[in-house]
Amino acid sequence: MSGWSAFQSMPMLAHPNAVLPMTYCVGLMLESGLVMVGDTRTNAGVDNIATFRKLQITEVPGERVIAIATAGNLAVTQSVVSHITEGMTMADGTRHTLHTAPSMFELAQFVGRAVRHVADRDSEALHQDGGRFDCSLLVGGQIAGGPPRLFMIYRAGNFVEATQDTPYLQIGEHKYGKPILDRAVTYDTPLNEALKLALISMDSTIRSNLAVGLPVDAVVVPRDALAASVNVRIGQDDAYFESVRHAWSDALREAHQHIPNPPYGA
Amino acid sequence: MSGWSAFQSMPMLAHPNAVLPMTYCVGLMLESGLVMVGDTRTNAGVDNIATFRKLQITEVPGERVIAIATAGNLAVTQSVVSHITEGMTMADGTRHTLHTAPSMFELAQFVGRAVRHVADRDSEALHQDGGRFDCSLLVGGQIAGGPPRLFMIYRAGNFVEATQDTPYLQIGEHKYGKPILDRAVTYDTPLNEALKLALISMDSTIRSNLAVGLPVDAVVVPRDALAASVNVRIGQDDAYFESVRHAWSDALREAHQHIPNPPYGA
Repeated sequence: MSGWSAFQSMPMLAHPNAVLPMTYCVGLMLESGLVMVGDTRTNAGVDNIATFRKLQITEVPGERVIAIATAGNLAVTQSVVSHITEGMTMADGTRHTLHTAPSMFELAQFVGRAVRHVADRDSEALHQDGGRFDCSLLVGGQIAGGPPRLFMIYRAGNFVEATQDTPYLQIGEHKYGKPILDRAVTYDTPLNEALKLALISMDSTIRSNLAVGLPVDAVVVPRDALAASVNVRIGQDDAYFESVRHAWSDALREAHQHIPNPPYGA
Repeated sequence: MSGWSAFQSMPMLAHPNAVLPMTYCVGLMLESGLVMVGDTRTNAGVDNIATFRKLQITEVPGERVIAIATAGNLAVTQSVVSHITEGMTMADGTRHTLHTAPSMFELAQFVGRAVRHVADRDSEALHQDGGRFDCSLLVGGQIAGGPPRLFMIYRAGNFVEATQDTPYLQIGEHKYGKPILDRAVTYDTPLNEALKLALISMDSTIRSNLAVGLPVDAVVVPRDALAASVNVRIGQDDAYFESVRHAWSDALREAHQHIPNPPYGA
């Protein structure tokens, strides 16, 4: 209802190049490793909805495992991913890809450079069209010789990193799925429980924002394994996710019934 | 963390005239009557926070009871409230206030006119200052001879009304407090339980958005009573609200523990 109201009173925001959160991806960087979950729904207006993978994984077993999730304008994020996959020529004439980055920190800088490269190419045209350049990415993984790390790259190409104090990062529609993460996730949460919590967080978001939808991609990368232990697409027919949806909805409904009514005398 | 990140990457949004949700008010129009809850925190940037009442009630016992909640630019919303309280002269030369409106529908139109009046005065100057004209209001209550009704007035002065299908309306930071309403509120929810649910919804919002804060004002207007049965300010020292906060947080934390871990083999 609020979403509909917002469209009604702010018709500009319905423009396909406008900035409405229509993706949800979350990454958790824990003591035991990395968990990343992303939805696949994209839209250019509510009348044009399609499925695109937003969470992509690159593995060279024993050497590097990198998961990248994207949010924002699909034309922008696809270009960024193509640049870091196909490679970009740097100022010194060398050519880099996500396979050549010597560390996760170097990789985050490289992805930031790719974002700026696409911004240089597209942002003026997007602005002329009444939209704006918009994208954000989660870049997580581990490269042999270094620890697993998780970064969030902004549309300006700058980035922040998950820490022990705040071990998760979100892109896109982050609000609905944040309360469960804030209350239940800590740095020492085991990987399997963390995946469950990420899926509950995703379910809360799907329940409240039509622009976020199944199927969902989920990746788990245990620390120092240098390979994914889970790399799964969860669709409508996934019995476990279906049971999470029902159990969480029932739990929320029941939780308030144990709280007494107010004493103010209604 | 996400809020901080957003500020970092979008410095424009930190402008005091920018549109960041920094209020939460909710109204529920039920079979048994009306519940409205609003916070009191206002800010001009995160370094300038103050307390202003956003939920105001006007009672003429036996004749009309009207509750108005506001969100958006404080200079705008205070002007709108002053206009509808002091009165505005219409095109036909008559002068109207919220005391002269013959029905809740007429009142909603009158408030919409006040919004447009302030927009005519201020929106160009706000735009010049890098901000934008922004406000929204909830107008709920009952006027003798008609049923209780609840409207949400947009910054364009147009409005929608709560219905039996969707018996609640929110303004400001609506996302964090929406899941509990979606799952637990129906048109036949009793007033006292509805007040509890509105307070849980407020607590979820306060927990996740620093720009929404105590004290909270709460009003309950039973159908056909033509007077408020609850009109209370809930502060830091309110034992019931404190117990709600703890109970709800514990319930959320515990809820996920009853859901099994995923079978994908992390």
